[in-house]
Amino acid sequence: MKKILVIDPIVKLEFQKMVKEYLAAFEKPDLEIEIATVEKGPSSIETFFDESFALPEILRIVDENKDRVDAIVVNCFADPAVHAARDLVKIPVVGPAEASVSIALLLGQKFGIISTLRNSGPWSEMQVRTMGCPDRLAGAAGIDIPVLELNSDPVKTADRLAQAALHLIRDKGAEVIVLGCTGMAKVSQILRQKLEVPVVEPLSAAISMAEVLIRLNLSHSKTGLYLAPNPSSIKGYYWNGKEK
Amino acid sequence: MKKILVIDPIVKLEFQKMVKEYLAAFEKPDLEIEIATVEKGPSSIETFFDESFALPEILRIVDENKDRVDAIVVNCFADPAVHAARDLVKIPVVGPAEASVSIALLLGQKFGIISTLRNSGPWSEMQVRTMGCPDRLAGAAGIDIPVLELNSDPVKTADRLAQAALHLIRDKGAEVIVLGCTGMAKVSQILRQKLEVPVVEPLSAAISMAEVLIRLNLSHSKTGLYLAPNPSSIKGYYWNGKEK
Amino acid sequence: MKKILVIDPIVKLEFQKMVKEYLAAFEKPDLEIEIATVEKGPSSIETFFDESFALPEILRIVDENKDRVDAIVVNCFADPAVHAARDLVKIPVVGPAEASVSIALLLGQKFGIISTLRNSGPWSEMQVRTMGCPDRLAGAAGIDIPVLELNSDPVKTADRLAQAALHLIRDKGAEVIVLGCTGMAKVSQILRQKLEVPVVEPLSAAISMAEVLIRLNLSHSKTGLYLAPNPSSIKGYYWNGKEK
Amino acid sequence: MKKILVIDPIVKLEFQKMVKEYLAAFEKPDLEIEIATVEKGPSSIETFFDESFALPEILRIVDENKDRVDAIVVNCFADPAVHAARDLVKIPVVGPAEASVSIALLLGQKFGIISTLRNSGPWSEMQVRTMGCPDRLAGAAGIDIPVLELNSDPVKTADRLAQAALHLIRDKGAEVIVLGCTGMAKVSQILRQKLEVPVVEPLSAAISMAEVLIRLNLSHSKTGLYLAPNPSSIKGYYWNGKEK
Amino acid sequence: MKKILVIDPIVKLEFQKMVKEYLAAFEKPDLEIEIATVEKGPSSIETFFDESFALPEILRIVDENKDRVDAIVVNCFADPAVHAARDLVKIPVVGPAEASVSIALLLGQKFGIISTLRNSGPWSEMQVRTMGCPDRLAGAAGIDIPVLELNSDPVKTADRLAQAALHLIRDKGAEVIVLGCTGMAKVSQILRQKLEVPVVEPLSAAISMAEVLIRLNLSHSKTGLYLAPNPSSIKGYYWNGKEK
Amino acid sequence: MKKILVIDPIVKLEFQKMVKEYLAAFEKPDLEIEIATVEKGPSSIETFFDESFALPEILRIVDENKDRVDAIVVNCFADPAVHAARDLVKIPVVGPAEASVSIALLLGQKFGIISTLRNSGPWSEMQVRTMGCPDRLAGAAGIDIPVLELNSDPVKTADRLAQAALHLIRDKGAEVIVLGCTGMAKVSQILRQKLEVPVVEPLSAAISMAEVLIRLNLSHSKTGLYLAPNPSSIKGYYWNGKEK
Repeated sequence: MKKILVIDPIVKLEFQKMVKEYLAAFEKPDLEIEIATVEKGPSSIETFFDESFALPEILRIVDENKDRVDAIVVNCFADPAVHAARDLVKIPVVGPAEASVSIALLLGQKFGIISTLRNSGPWSEMQVRTMGCPDRLAGAAGIDIPVLELNSDPVKTADRLAQAALHLIRDKGAEVIVLGCTGMAKVSQILRQKLEVPVVEPLSAAISMAEVLIRLNLSHSKTGLYLAPNPSSIKGYYWNGKEK
Repeated sequence: MKKILVIDPIVKLEFQKMVKEYLAAFEKPDLEIEIATVEKGPSSIETFFDESFALPEILRIVDENKDRVDAIVVNCFADPAVHAARDLVKIPVVGPAEASVSIALLLGQKFGIISTLRNSGPWSEMQVRTMGCPDRLAGAAGIDIPVLELNSDPVKTADRLAQAALHLIRDKGAEVIVLGCTGMAKVSQILRQKLEVPVVEPLSAAISMAEVLIRLNLSHSKTGLYLAPNPSSIKGYYWNGKEK
Repeated sequence: MKKILVIDPIVKLEFQKMVKEYLAAFEKPDLEIEIATVEKGPSSIETFFDESFALPEILRIVDENKDRVDAIVVNCFADPAVHAARDLVKIPVVGPAEASVSIALLLGQKFGIISTLRNSGPWSEMQVRTMGCPDRLAGAAGIDIPVLELNSDPVKTADRLAQAALHLIRDKGAEVIVLGCTGMAKVSQILRQKLEVPVVEPLSAAISMAEVLIRLNLSHSKTGLYLAPNPSSIKGYYWNGKEK
Repeated sequence: MKKILVIDPIVKLEFQKMVKEYLAAFEKPDLEIEIATVEKGPSSIETFFDESFALPEILRIVDENKDRVDAIVVNCFADPAVHAARDLVKIPVVGPAEASVSIALLLGQKFGIISTLRNSGPWSEMQVRTMGCPDRLAGAAGIDIPVLELNSDPVKTADRLAQAALHLIRDKGAEVIVLGCTGMAKVSQILRQKLEVPVVEPLSAAISMAEVLIRLNLSHSKTGLYLAPNPSSIKGYYWNGKEK
Repeated sequence: MKKILVIDPIVKLEFQKMVKEYLAAFEKPDLEIEIATVEKGPSSIETFFDESFALPEILRIVDENKDRVDAIVVNCFADPAVHAARDLVKIPVVGPAEASVSIALLLGQKFGIISTLRNSGPWSEMQVRTMGCPDRLAGAAGIDIPVLELNSDPVKTADRLAQAALHLIRDKGAEVIVLGCTGMAKVSQILRQKLEVPVVEPLSAAISMAEVLIRLNLSHSKTGLYLAPNPSSIKGYYWNGKEK
Repeated sequence: MKKILVIDPIVKLEFQKMVKEYLAAFEKPDLEIEIATVEKGPSSIETFFDESFALPEILRIVDENKDRVDAIVVNCFADPAVHAARDLVKIPVVGPAEASVSIALLLGQKFGIISTLRNSGPWSEMQVRTMGCPDRLAGAAGIDIPVLELNSDPVKTADRLAQAALHLIRDKGAEVIVLGCTGMAKVSQILRQKLEVPVVEPLSAAISMAEVLIRLNLSHSKTGLYLAPNPSSIKGYYWNGKEK
């Protein structure tokens, strides 16, 4: 039995319930998916500012679970603490943005990313530049609906997503649509019926890539970008004086 | 029960046997892996020339199986006929090179590719440029052992691979090693013991990414790069006069 | 007297006649242009699928003529078998896409590519990425007329081309137009009268670059990307058991 | 009188003293430089993990000072919280890495980055990719001395830096050296005497770019990548329930 | 007291007067800004042709002043003679285009450049490609007003600039506007009131970056791209027979 | 009868004689090659500084000949005045660097450039970045022999070139060598015997590409990067008061 731990980096517990239902479909006889939620931090992650307050708690949860699960997924398209968690642990840590791009690259020449507020477009462009494949990105845009309202009116959300997707498809050459927020999991099902292109939902993408890494017995390299930290040197957090 | 068809694009049946054994470990209660082999074509694929003669047969096998399997993997790092097969079918078609790069992107800042003859280095560089992520590639090199001799002396092969890997790791900044030939599946196990970086074996990478696409109900976009062909217009091959 | 062999990779003989007339103007007292046509293969090359069936015959023709001509041009913008032919022979092998891009780079800051069906746009983008100069490409688009109908109504074709060109010029910054199909040779003459930017016709571009390579006594390097193959190992084709 | 606030993101007060002395030389009759230090967080920032624990406190200090200073510099080459602070405030926020690259671009064709531990090389490469100018980077490397030991034996540190610099200059084509750690401020003076290329010290680079932005009355755009956050939604930190 | 020499590369003296007034605001108790004007050369620089005739005189002025000033700024967005002057002298030489891009990189994800005639758009794109950060450029465009008419009707000019800026902001994703002509210094003040994004004025950007380099005691590397020339070998110009 | 005018941008007449002999072999019954030499300017072009003094005279010669020749080649790898001449005239203007790169792109995966002094390496890298194909460049280096001494000891020069070439081939992956100076025309013949890779000699490359453009009736676009200048506005040069 393998276990993937999904960490919700926002303090809204209603969100966790929705995630649980969605992920139930991804469990298997030999794969259990657990969810943990930060106790402090942002209500949603829509800015770099929000993201900053999610990191310490994500890393605490990673540390507490690193010896009992087989892989970790952080449930937010900003991939918060993904690099930091890779410093800390040897098991695979997967972010939804990286996972979605890895999958989108197999599905067509160019992909577009649709997300929530208007800053999410440039943010996604920056993420893709960091990942090193900007020539595969057709464009990125927000739909001006905040994360926590995405599911209030799913039909409206899906309409807006479809409209933004069609702009990226017709005017920018997108052949694949990546949803730039893991809060769009449910709405993605409505959206798929409106579009004739593949739609990558990032939470399921991350779970799937985590499974791949478990199956292939692969994890991130610790010889270059990632380095085991010294948690005992962190002052004023859970780590206070803990040996690494 | 889902089925993945692996197509061996070379006429050597002994190769098929080895592939079968290797892939047995990837079968699951709900996943069957079948293997088919071209009847005409190259003995190995080590040049663009060799690859050219593999395509018609790969596509024949794709056509004959497209309605009874859930995904197709072409068992060669040149990803032969992968784009062409995507024109032909709606089910996912996965190439080992694309799949390996998708996975390597999650494992470190830069990856290196090691393959067989000396032309494989530049060839891999070209593949990665086509995929649009050249800034993530540390380098690529061959080990001067032809495909069909890779398994004659596995210890020697693993030694050469380790040597080439260490050059890419120490001098070029590779943090992840991608094997650039699906004939290295067995040898990869020896190699892993010699290196402290993750080693991506491309056939298992392709199988895994095919599973991901099946699971996520995703396939390539048919709105951009790929277009349903008209097989009846092909003269002198299996397709002669067949309606699409 | 130098000879360039132009290989038509499609089985339509009427196409060969048109090519012959067009190329007559490129012959010189010391330059003869011959045309050969595949006997099996596609009726036109509009998909990766089509292209796959052209390769074995192109390579047969290359092999049969390699000792009696000075350079080879493959008459299709997909540059089919160009890399494979370079593995096989030492004389220059030129593809219309590569040749057109080489020329377009001298004519302005950015070029656009116009081709036939809608998939040709993304395909050309991928070709340019492979060639390593994506920042010079303004955009690429198809005009939704299949290859074999391009010359049925040349005025209509030229109108559509002009319309697509103007979009690339006005909205995307193209300063040079590259025609993305060698079947547009005749129509290009009408198009040139409609546009004030340079129009690169790919067949003439390829012939010209082949002449340049002959004149400069240059051919592709055999030390890196290209490697002499072993044709005797190909089973079931013209090459059956032939020594290289 | 203009004020720049330098935020030390590590809890070591001895570090603050050194910074104060170094920055004294950058004060002017009309420019005051203040230093603030986080009260919780890492002892040094050498991993993504370390960086994560610096962010909440940096942002608290930014918030407390945003109305009384004219620009903010975060004193670490990881540029921690720089994007997040830009979400929060309208005054310029400058990171040493971004500032150093901006200056290095004016000094030669290619620059190299030298930093502390071995992971800092790939980290810097990733930063430069995010900044969008990877073709200007010759290479990046660490010298295997942790931040807190850089000043224990300045001569040894300068020797190691010189050695790493010479490798980047001779073998990789670096014409300019960027120091990849703001803890190298003092040592940079020794290093400059050993090298004939310009050496960019990142803390002074950041102070200088902050002055430029103040002088030109420029600050980051709030129409794209950056968006004013809602601090009241952050639970469990200084922000608890604060209105934005 | 430090001195920056601004070289006007055009023979219009009325332009010099305007520059003098504009730069007065950038002087400081310890910073003097001098202006020198070419005696031969173009009336404005709007083409590569114009630029060519500015170079010999710029270099003469650089040579005559190189021992009495601390930095040199060439007052034109084409950055004329900037590389050549760096060959000649050891003090910093700053071009407005390079300086503006260095600053724009700190202000948002993507910047746009607006300049004078229609060729200035592609020219700026080429400049940014040379600088190595094309992925940060949203787009570039001219407003069809020649340099010498920019200030005839400042309101009209500002209107046109605003219109071009809004196109780059709304349709291309620009978050920062760089003015692509140093003749827009005055008009930039009107423009700033019309736009909610930061506007980088290139002459002030160049002065500021020159100050930074003076302050940091940095100048261009003479170990790579730049090489001390041998002026005595230049025939028929001011340099005739002068020893270097 | 077509005419190509080759402009020597340096005042050394002995150089012209050598060029004449070399180019004789490129004349044809229907192609005449003329040579003109600047009367003022540099003795050789080895720095940006040198190049600056070549431009006015090159442009004078272009203007005086623009109606009587069919294409212009500027005989220097710095491509001096090539963009400026394209502003001025409608006939094709070809630079040896651009032409060499266009040809090298057809010959292998990566090319290397070898030139004269040590600054020529970074300069060539910058040129290739401007051309937009940096991923095809393996590396560039000088051999520390000034232009005017290249032919003093051709065997020594060829030895040094071979040594530099072998470094680029073995350690950097170059498959094609481009000579980065048109003064290496004669020596290139010796070099070719020492290397098994194609060697592109830039003057012959430029002549050949000029012929291609004449033959195809193509010239640079005047709708984007290039704009007809107003020579009458140039003060103090040949152009003084001339109407365009």
